[in-house]
Amino acid sequence: MKLRTCPRLQPLKESIRFLTRKPAQFSDGSRICKRTFAGHTTAQQACDALVYNRHGHYDDVLQLEKVLLPPVGDEDLRIKMLAAPVNPADINMLQGTYAILPPFPAVGGNEGLGEVLEVGSKVCDAKPGDWVIPVDAGFGTWRMEVVCKATDVIPVAKDIPLLSAATLGVNPCTAYRMLKDFGNLKPGDTVIQNGANSAVGQAVIQIAAGMGLSTINIIRDRPNLKELKDKLKSLGASLVITEEALQKPEVTNLFKDIRRPKLALNCVGGHSAGNLLAHMEYGSTMVTYGGMAKKPVPVPAKALIFKDINVCGFWMTQWKRNNMHDLSEIKAMVAELAEMVRRGQLSVPTCTQVPFPDYKVALDATTRAYSSKHVLMME
Amino acid sequence: MKLRTCPRLQPLKESIRFLTRKPAQFSDGSRICKRTFAGHTTAQQACDALVYNRHGHYDDVLQLEKVLLPPVGDEDLRIKMLAAPVNPADINMLQGTYAILPPFPAVGGNEGLGEVLEVGSKVCDAKPGDWVIPVDAGFGTWRMEVVCKATDVIPVAKDIPLLSAATLGVNPCTAYRMLKDFGNLKPGDTVIQNGANSAVGQAVIQIAAGMGLSTINIIRDRPNLKELKDKLKSLGASLVITEEALQKPEVTNLFKDIRRPKLALNCVGGHSAGNLLAHMEYGSTMVTYGGMAKKPVPVPAKALIFKDINVCGFWMTQWKRNNMHDLSEIKAMVAELAEMVRRGQLSVPTCTQVPFPDYKVALDATTRAYSSKHVLMME
Repeated sequence: MKLRTCPRLQPLKESIRFLTRKPAQFSDGSRICKRTFAGHTTAQQACDALVYNRHGHYDDVLQLEKVLLPPVGDEDLRIKMLAAPVNPADINMLQGTYAILPPFPAVGGNEGLGEVLEVGSKVCDAKPGDWVIPVDAGFGTWRMEVVCKATDVIPVAKDIPLLSAATLGVNPCTAYRMLKDFGNLKPGDTVIQNGANSAVGQAVIQIAAGMGLSTINIIRDRPNLKELKDKLKSLGASLVITEEALQKPEVTNLFKDIRRPKLALNCVGGHSAGNLLAHMEYGSTMVTYGGMAKKPVPVPAKALIFKDINVCGFWMTQWKRNNMHDLSEIKAMVAELAEMVRRGQLSVPTCTQVPFPDYKVALDATTRAYSSKHVLMME
Repeated sequence: MKLRTCPRLQPLKESIRFLTRKPAQFSDGSRICKRTFAGHTTAQQACDALVYNRHGHYDDVLQLEKVLLPPVGDEDLRIKMLAAPVNPADINMLQGTYAILPPFPAVGGNEGLGEVLEVGSKVCDAKPGDWVIPVDAGFGTWRMEVVCKATDVIPVAKDIPLLSAATLGVNPCTAYRMLKDFGNLKPGDTVIQNGANSAVGQAVIQIAAGMGLSTINIIRDRPNLKELKDKLKSLGASLVITEEALQKPEVTNLFKDIRRPKLALNCVGGHSAGNLLAHMEYGSTMVTYGGMAKKPVPVPAKALIFKDINVCGFWMTQWKRNNMHDLSEIKAMVAELAEMVRRGQLSVPTCTQVPFPDYKVALDATTRAYSSKHVLMME
């Protein structure tokens, strides 16, 4: 695994808890005001940030604090954060259960949109007013401002909706890569997915439709089922069916009108993943990118041996790190997704906007089932 | 999937039960004497064979009968069977639960060694006295003689023990392909496997040792544990441990002296497969080639997403069929394995030899746990 060497935003490491660090200094050089610089803050130097110094429930460990920003170096940018989603991975990171964990003190949030305020003298590919999003996880987006290396962010077009830009870098990228890199898909092929109403699921439906693929979309039963089915169909879903309906014998009739899936996308695990496997084509691939049910994927030996099904995983963070030596592929993917938004092929995600100081509302909602995506708005 | 077109030995097909055939004629053209040719049999024309006409328990469906052989055509061979193993897959085929099933009436047995008796006028790469083994599954090896296309068999060296030659075409080939084709293994790498005392497991230990690989071999606890450990170590096993010991915390000490496995070979499934996954290296591969526990492989989402583990299957029959258009690779593999036998790097498997008429003894034993491999001996 190739990790960046970056003096400000240190690369995250597994078992990062074993690192010894000065407790009140952030990896980007910013410091908590009230502890070390109380009375010295100015408008330029300080900003609000959601800070945590230990792992646990966010109610216990996350606090809104003033932190001092370091000076802007030659290769740096100063960025005003505009919006930052709250994702389940952010909550897991606070709890200390995610695969990578930042050193303490840490700022919460991995995803978000910022506007460039100030540009270091040696930075030639950014200017004040540009929109940017973080390249890597662990950026700490839940803050009003940040100073970082110019290479820690990539540009995103300003002529798309702010909420699209703020949520482009993780979920649509995950959908895009899984559809492009697995299953060797051609127009007319079929993709099956569970958790089809998730942010990734909705992006899969839309990007797949643009690629000429059929999608079979599995959702949980719920009171407003017809409304959700209609919504997903309006995004381009070929079929939307519940987990329960997928297990009925008559479901085999589906495959009279639509090819068996060459690719299955699983973010649930347990029985739900097993149900996907039962319908897949010979020689197909199941990609797991989440485990909402917190149960393993049960893979029958016969599916592996006689149906030659391949079971693997995808993690956007790792893909980005594998491509960190040359940002052109990441930039091209984000530019292509922005173009899809511009053409109306990738809709603005359904988000609940929450003012930054009301962050607890967003965190509470993110831990609830059937909740929409919540985004912290900094202005 | 490419299937051979062969007028005598028809390619097996999934759901072959739906094929309509004349009931008393075999796919190789031989016929059951007692039904159609009673009184016409001669030494040349007829032989004993273990025949079944429907699926079920072998006690109910398998019978020793006389069948008539067809004449030897220009491209054919007449072969005297010398020995034929009884494998679990043969039992599943009789039961009708295997992935491929021959048309009725069928002769049991997929693996075995034959000696060429008679050669068709257009066959130039075989002569009487040669030893041959079937290329494809479904050959029907549980019989005294057979007439087949010359391309339905490949040669095997006569200077290795008869039992090695009779058991070379399935289990050692499976071990060989899994070690060569998965995990991109280099000398010094580690392979972990369960069912390490199986015929495939023993071949894995020996072939891996020849490739400079370490092996961690998982077996079930049993009364004669030390004896079995010593035997597997004498074959070249680096470590032999029980399923129970693998789950103890102190097992992590193993990985101070030996690298974490890049490849896991699973023929059990269920918890046993899960235990293998827990110890694998980042980016490693688990290949499933059996499912003795009859339980799915439970794959945690974290193993797929954060450890980038790939879970797939291997089926020797399918590999052979994929390579049927050009037999050179199959022939080369068998020749290389025979050379390992000759050099003492691949031992004669522990087999119980059973006279052909006592076939029920061998079938009973094959369905029992902890039983050795049983081989029907035709002479």
